[in-house]
Amino acid sequence: MNQDYIKPDNWSIIEEGFDADQVKSSESIFSIGNGAMGQRANFEELYSGPTFQGSYIAGVYYPDKTRVGWWKNGYPEYFAKVLNAPNWIGINVIVNGEPLDLFTCKKIEGFRRELNMKEGWLSRSFKAVLQNNTQVQVESKRFLSLELDEIGAIKYSVTPLNDNAEIIFEPYLDGGITNEDSNWDDKFWNITGIAHSDNQAFIEAHTMKTNFHTCTFMQSEILVNNKRKDIKPKIFEAEDIISFAYTVKTQKNQTATIHKYAGYTVDRDHHQNELVLAAKKALATAVKSGFEALLKQQKNAWSEIWKMSDISIEGDVKAQQGIRFNIFQLNQTYLGTDAHLNIGPKGFTGEKYGGSTYWDTEAYCIPFYMATKDQQVARNLLEYRYHHLSKAIENAEKLGFTNGAALYPMVTMNGEECHNEWEITFEEIHRNGAIAFAIYNYHRFTGDNSYIKEKGLEVLIAIARFWYQRATFSTLKNKYVILGVTGPNEYENNVNNNFYTNYLAKWCLEYTVDCINSVKHNYLEDFERIRVKTNLKGEETYKWIEVADDMYFPFSEEHNIYLQQDSFLDKELIKVDKLPKSERPINQKWSWDRILRSPYIKQADTLQGFYFFEDRFTLEELERHFDFYEPFTVHESSLSPCVHCIQAAKLGRMEQAYDFYLRTSRLDLDDYNHEVEEGLHITSMAGTWMSIVEGFGGMRVNNEKLSFAPRIPEQWQSYSFKVNFRQQIIDVNVSKDGTTFKINGRTPLQILVNDKAVTISPDNLLTI
Amino acid sequence: MNQDYIKPDNWSIIEEGFDADQVKSSESIFSIGNGAMGQRANFEELYSGPTFQGSYIAGVYYPDKTRVGWWKNGYPEYFAKVLNAPNWIGINVIVNGEPLDLFTCKKIEGFRRELNMKEGWLSRSFKAVLQNNTQVQVESKRFLSLELDEIGAIKYSVTPLNDNAEIIFEPYLDGGITNEDSNWDDKFWNITGIAHSDNQAFIEAHTMKTNFHTCTFMQSEILVNNKRKDIKPKIFEAEDIISFAYTVKTQKNQTATIHKYAGYTVDRDHHQNELVLAAKKALATAVKSGFEALLKQQKNAWSEIWKMSDISIEGDVKAQQGIRFNIFQLNQTYLGTDAHLNIGPKGFTGEKYGGSTYWDTEAYCIPFYMATKDQQVARNLLEYRYHHLSKAIENAEKLGFTNGAALYPMVTMNGEECHNEWEITFEEIHRNGAIAFAIYNYHRFTGDNSYIKEKGLEVLIAIARFWYQRATFSTLKNKYVILGVTGPNEYENNVNNNFYTNYLAKWCLEYTVDCINSVKHNYLEDFERIRVKTNLKGEETYKWIEVADDMYFPFSEEHNIYLQQDSFLDKELIKVDKLPKSERPINQKWSWDRILRSPYIKQADTLQGFYFFEDRFTLEELERHFDFYEPFTVHESSLSPCVHCIQAAKLGRMEQAYDFYLRTSRLDLDDYNHEVEEGLHITSMAGTWMSIVEGFGGMRVNNEKLSFAPRIPEQWQSYSFKVNFRQQIIDVNVSKDGTTFKINGRTPLQILVNDKAVTISPDNLLTI
Repeated sequence: MNQDYIKPDNWSIIEEGFDADQVKSSESIFSIGNGAMGQRANFEELYSGPTFQGSYIAGVYYPDKTRVGWWKNGYPEYFAKVLNAPNWIGINVIVNGEPLDLFTCKKIEGFRRELNMKEGWLSRSFKAVLQNNTQVQVESKRFLSLELDEIGAIKYSVTPLNDNAEIIFEPYLDGGITNEDSNWDDKFWNITGIAHSDNQAFIEAHTMKTNFHTCTFMQSEILVNNKRKDIKPKIFEAEDIISFAYTVKTQKNQTATIHKYAGYTVDRDHHQNELVLAAKKALATAVKSGFEALLKQQKNAWSEIWKMSDISIEGDVKAQQGIRFNIFQLNQTYLGTDAHLNIGPKGFTGEKYGGSTYWDTEAYCIPFYMATKDQQVARNLLEYRYHHLSKAIENAEKLGFTNGAALYPMVTMNGEECHNEWEITFEEIHRNGAIAFAIYNYHRFTGDNSYIKEKGLEVLIAIARFWYQRATFSTLKNKYVILGVTGPNEYENNVNNNFYTNYLAKWCLEYTVDCINSVKHNYLEDFERIRVKTNLKGEETYKWIEVADDMYFPFSEEHNIYLQQDSFLDKELIKVDKLPKSERPINQKWSWDRILRSPYIKQADTLQGFYFFEDRFTLEELERHFDFYEPFTVHESSLSPCVHCIQAAKLGRMEQAYDFYLRTSRLDLDDYNHEVEEGLHITSMAGTWMSIVEGFGGMRVNNEKLSFAPRIPEQWQSYSFKVNFRQQIIDVNVSKDGTTFKINGRTPLQILVNDKAVTISPDNLLTI
Repeated sequence: MNQDYIKPDNWSIIEEGFDADQVKSSESIFSIGNGAMGQRANFEELYSGPTFQGSYIAGVYYPDKTRVGWWKNGYPEYFAKVLNAPNWIGINVIVNGEPLDLFTCKKIEGFRRELNMKEGWLSRSFKAVLQNNTQVQVESKRFLSLELDEIGAIKYSVTPLNDNAEIIFEPYLDGGITNEDSNWDDKFWNITGIAHSDNQAFIEAHTMKTNFHTCTFMQSEILVNNKRKDIKPKIFEAEDIISFAYTVKTQKNQTATIHKYAGYTVDRDHHQNELVLAAKKALATAVKSGFEALLKQQKNAWSEIWKMSDISIEGDVKAQQGIRFNIFQLNQTYLGTDAHLNIGPKGFTGEKYGGSTYWDTEAYCIPFYMATKDQQVARNLLEYRYHHLSKAIENAEKLGFTNGAALYPMVTMNGEECHNEWEITFEEIHRNGAIAFAIYNYHRFTGDNSYIKEKGLEVLIAIARFWYQRATFSTLKNKYVILGVTGPNEYENNVNNNFYTNYLAKWCLEYTVDCINSVKHNYLEDFERIRVKTNLKGEETYKWIEVADDMYFPFSEEHNIYLQQDSFLDKELIKVDKLPKSERPINQKWSWDRILRSPYIKQADTLQGFYFFEDRFTLEELERHFDFYEPFTVHESSLSPCVHCIQAAKLGRMEQAYDFYLRTSRLDLDDYNHEVEEGLHITSMAGTWMSIVEGFGGMRVNNEKLSFAPRIPEQWQSYSFKVNFRQQIIDVNVSKDGTTFKINGRTPLQILVNDKAVTISPDNLLTI
């Protein structure tokens, strides 16, 4: 780990003491969100030190022109990004004529930040001596309301400690924001109107090109010692900013407070001409409730979420803090109610990865959402891809594929490819397999037979067609090969026969044929509809099976393992533990070509295949592959440690599994990869959940039954989690003494525990 | 071929009839240059149709920011480009109030363009009817003076044919120019001064960042029916443009003429404060001589060049026109007098490839310049790289190499890597070998023993160190391998054990050790100096030889050939002639990933190795490799057909060799690759020269002796060329009846003809 300043706590993330070097990291870690918008933990007041400002609105993105060298056919046309949106949190604070600015204060004492995950709010407090020697105590608290998801609420208090003071609160809205990752310094926002009435202000703006219309709004109240004061503000309005300055005269030790209610209304929810109207309504509701009542609603709303999704760990505060942080951030990012939204790798906590959808959703996030929410949430995530099918077919056509073959984009906002790196978009085609796997995984877990016949089969057929065309026959090997790919290990480019990709391709072809047969057998009418719609020919499936049967997998007789790709063994096989620490992480220390020809694995690749398809390999095979690949794995992708954790646990290597668990669960809190300031790794947080539930709990679904093989790390007394399985909630508690299961419904449920069938009865604790 | 509008002619390139669709192609083909500057064949007068404007000054470039996706360690920092420079050719022509514009004229008759290669000028004539019904005859002629290399001269005449006319000539200088290939729309030029005095005008400007200072200047004279007229111009001056409008009243059939003398002075030749002064001097000299006298000097200068470098072909006008066009353009681009300049792949005829230096110079251009110029010219080209050695070492250090290893950049202006494509800069490392090979080639041809001991050996040692470190040991193969490269065939990326690269690496290691031993033996003092300077250790050379001896080469037993790279045979080996014509060229029709995994070879790769190292392979081996690879070669690089021509000729396949000859020599004239409008393929033109001299003439140097194996294509009666070999000029004439050799000196010369030793005596024609 690379940082150790977050205080251990079961329910909160806490920072104590001010360190300008940690500001950007903390801005990521203390981010808040409510599914509809997100906000980095930027200070409300001016901060003149290094900072990374970020306010994001779900689904509001811009198609920035890509940066590639000489454009070649098939390169992605644009690089989509969820934009830094107009600033709604800003409050300039001027104390006796001097702006409060933590970067220039003479002295800062008792700085404390808390992200209270149980209740869903962020607070900050400190004592500061300004350059003008005024001494102030500052307290702030803010949250993004789950209940009113257009509203953010801030309570900000200043108490002069050494004398009376004139305090000016100047809440503002600022549309003059930029993106740090802009490729061409384009202007992203067009401000169409700035208005104010009474205590309210509005900035109407739409994104360039994509034309997402938004209204950013605010309204404030001033209190002195908790009593409302009616102060007439001085209004300042410029091209892209509007502010209200409230001057408050305070006595020594009197507390001046501002409540700022602010946020966004967007044309995803309202007509674009009614955004100001909608903003007024939202403000009216919020102001009427008041800060404290809204905060109470917030606590209740989070309490509901935790009821289902909490994982508690006894005896290991850091582990407990880690998993709750992960679950909290996942819920801040995506609540699953809108099939047009999805989960970006950084959620709403930074600009990297553009806020777009990657294969992370299908490979890592779906299990979490399936087990902790209503099944409709996971189904919404599947439907997101169904809605994009025609664009995926177009995408494949651009690359020369025919007959309705689909290649889903590596990165997308609206179904179109929108990545910044051509080599990944062309080569990292395994994402197409993960999208198919998610359909299988959803069906396996939920037992929902309707999705495949209604929508999923069309997706599967288009994906199978892609793999069939993408495989080519090697006369030399007398097998079908898949050339020129990048596997999950992005530290290799343009390799041949990546085991994971080839296996996924083979499986996709087989599974699609299974699904076709099953739909034909059980839902002939649906089959006919899909057959006509996709122009499916009987002989196609035979050809698919031929390719699946004759798929090539590189294998080393010497090591008795499948090779990650054809020429893996030609590399200089120096293990990671032989690398000097000064050269890690290699993606920051080495040139890219050196990484590409090294044996170092960015993230689980062959082992990812063993995770998806564990039924097809023996434990001994898993062990050999784990022993071979783990020593070359640098885990420089956030998506890596969780898979290794699950595999280590399966192999009974609990100490190693525990290390991987800490790494995945505290990846951001402890900044393992030296990059947390860029934002949090949201999608891998679902992998942390899998580490406990699938890794330690050993949860699987086998033949329609939930199955467990509970293990517990030495360091823990117990842990417990809940799973929503087919409309029943199972409560699992694992301790060193055994495991208990409880069911929250009226029907008994047969499960497997360590391969033995047992039945959980309602209202009875099953102890094993 | 894709166009057929250039009229066959022995000494000129001729276009007849105006076709707006050909304007951009002709702008490339009819380009003029004098080594110091170059000018596309843009019209002097306004042209409102599609055009690609280009005026270039040798060595004046800009480091444009590169476009890459997410920047990774070692990516090139900038993309250098020789800039489109202020326009010096422009002359607006207004006839009876209407601007002459070929795109809008009512009628154009007798349009004719001629690039007279014998004398080095470009002319244009046409009859046009303007929208206002004025009928005019227009004649223009221009050239870039070889004698006064800062001067371009234009003679432009207009004759009204149907009535008297008021003709306004408005010569101008325009600094408000842009580059089409600008990555970020940066401003490249900063104009620091616009001035005029009498008939002269000056624009002083320097490039941003690189700060190359230039003065663009002009002076004009007006004539009516060849008599000078003293007309006071109306001067127009704006931010970045200055023009002089001369109004001339002409009678019907009277000819109004303007002489415009213009060009650039640059701080490569003058102090930056004296550029206007230098311009005035250049103008004074030019104006004093006058257009016709300058033209005569031009003819004489070109006559001198042709004396040595001409190749004449009897019986095949198109073939003749092709080779002369190639030799002409090479001489327009680079005259070899300045070791700071080099030869960009497009010379001064377009923006692509940025005017930078590629490996083309070493692999293709050096033989031409060695044989047709003084040996100092080739030596200057070698010294160019010697001057860049420390930057090449820095470049390698950035990529993790140590101990003085050098990796020369793929593309450079000043020794730094400045390409737009990261994958090429990292992977296409074979250029390092070509730079070593050129040292060998120069020494082999010239017998100049001083270069290696003075400069070359340092370069060789640094290159050997690179190859030694870049090769890694494969336990699996029990050999040294070179992973993750791109060979000359850029239609494969990141492959392992590219035969050409591995062979070149092996050869470099061996040759460097040979040179070390030879310098140590013959020039101990030099050796000591270099040993100390490079910190060369004795054991290094042993290790180099070990790697050279144990280098791995992929080989197919089945085909009995070396494989282009490890996995070439895994590809779908469908031959080029089975591809539908509609899918060619594949680089315009296919997506990049499809190209990368196809077997199609952009340019000679394994065969390039057989060309460099032909002594090490038998004719049978060559034949097998030619037969295997040629059917997969699409020749979508200009550098490909010449190598295949040479190899086909060597195999006695003269019909095929002839086709390749036409393809290389008329690549641009007939636009084989659908892209001539982007500019000419200058460096490959030296390959055309090699096709005749080395391919048909079979010229080699063996054991210090010139050797020939003359062949002649069926379509030709005879051909002849000259070679400057070690200060003696040999004149070779090959006809169907035999070959004659003449020597232009006082010493007899023993040569080999078809492996037999014969002696050419001065003043005696040797006939064989």
